[in-house]
Amino acid sequence: MDGLLVTIEGGEGAGKTTQSGLLADALAGRGFDVLRTREPGGAPGAEALRRFLLAGDHRLSRRAEAMAHYAARFDHVDNTIRPALAAGRMVLCDRYADSTLAYQGYGLAQGEPDVLAFIARLDALLDVRPHLTLVLDVARAEGLHRLRQRGGDADRYETLDDAFHERVAAGYRSIAKAHPVRCRLIPAGGAVETVHRRMLEAVLAAVPPGR
Amino acid sequence: MDGLLVTIEGGEGAGKTTQSGLLADALAGRGFDVLRTREPGGAPGAEALRRFLLAGDHRLSRRAEAMAHYAARFDHVDNTIRPALAAGRMVLCDRYADSTLAYQGYGLAQGEPDVLAFIARLDALLDVRPHLTLVLDVARAEGLHRLRQRGGDADRYETLDDAFHERVAAGYRSIAKAHPVRCRLIPAGGAVETVHRRMLEAVLAAVPPGR
Repeated sequence: MDGLLVTIEGGEGAGKTTQSGLLADALAGRGFDVLRTREPGGAPGAEALRRFLLAGDHRLSRRAEAMAHYAARFDHVDNTIRPALAAGRMVLCDRYADSTLAYQGYGLAQGEPDVLAFIARLDALLDVRPHLTLVLDVARAEGLHRLRQRGGDADRYETLDDAFHERVAAGYRSIAKAHPVRCRLIPAGGAVETVHRRMLEAVLAAVPPGR
Repeated sequence: MDGLLVTIEGGEGAGKTTQSGLLADALAGRGFDVLRTREPGGAPGAEALRRFLLAGDHRLSRRAEAMAHYAARFDHVDNTIRPALAAGRMVLCDRYADSTLAYQGYGLAQGEPDVLAFIARLDALLDVRPHLTLVLDVARAEGLHRLRQRGGDADRYETLDDAFHERVAAGYRSIAKAHPVRCRLIPAGGAVETVHRRMLEAVLAAVPPGR
């Protein structure tokens, strides 16, 4: 596979959607063949599973929920990401495997060691890994403010309490610390343009010479 | 865990539903505390996932579909099977892990080695295994006849072609052969009472002395 997989991670209201749009446009403007996608979802079957997972009218056990997210991820990999990488494209993905660890592992399961170990075993099955992960780090208060400005219906994660979102944010910081080569922790509290510039620089630095 | 997990497997129209009902009644009549359950499903979250998986209005990749079945299975284990076994109950489960190998592995993926290997890796995550598996083996023609008699709406598997169902039946025979201690291949083409007696004898023989 010759393409490049860049994942964008972060809690609610960190600005991922806005920033991944700006990043995709900037990279396309520099001549990269960019595919912008997202999780959960990114392929028809995975999108159907996304609707199931985000609806919140069911409750799976912690292990089952983490596994269902990975099932959606394998569909996305098999039907969207792997073919795009094989075609040499740059794939920008809004959320990927780190989201399961941050949300299901650190957030919902409160870092329970059994659940973290189970997610690690699921992750070991994954055969497509990001070349670069941009972790947008934002103080919870600002994230909440952005969420409220966005409006619309909240999904099941957006309605969870502050302690949950703090655990998710702290989880992302641990992930970034544990994978210092793959991850860049981007302070995302500043102006949109400042954050954008930091993200674009990180991606351009990760592109192998000659691309 | 002191309980006993007995799984009942077989293709469409093998008589699993009828036979598991008769078996549950006969065992309860002998004083066993029996929980009768089924897959996919067997817990509220897993039942919701069952509706998603059997609806057939989506198509997940082969790996994703196998994993989604295991996600439902983990929910069932965590919320239903493990607590029942911990309480010392006898759990009779209509379909379990062998169904994923037979249907997703041998049936849909036509025994493709990569998919079989992936399912084996998923199965290695499972921490609750059957003490005994009764595999109901029936000729396809008779299975089809029973299905037609049953009537009602067909789910996505029931509508697949004969070659698919032959692969599933052959897959079950390989599984039984590969696990001769755990599995009993029960010829299920005869009279309901004959099949029932064989199944009951197999379960009673598997109960540890003193239970």
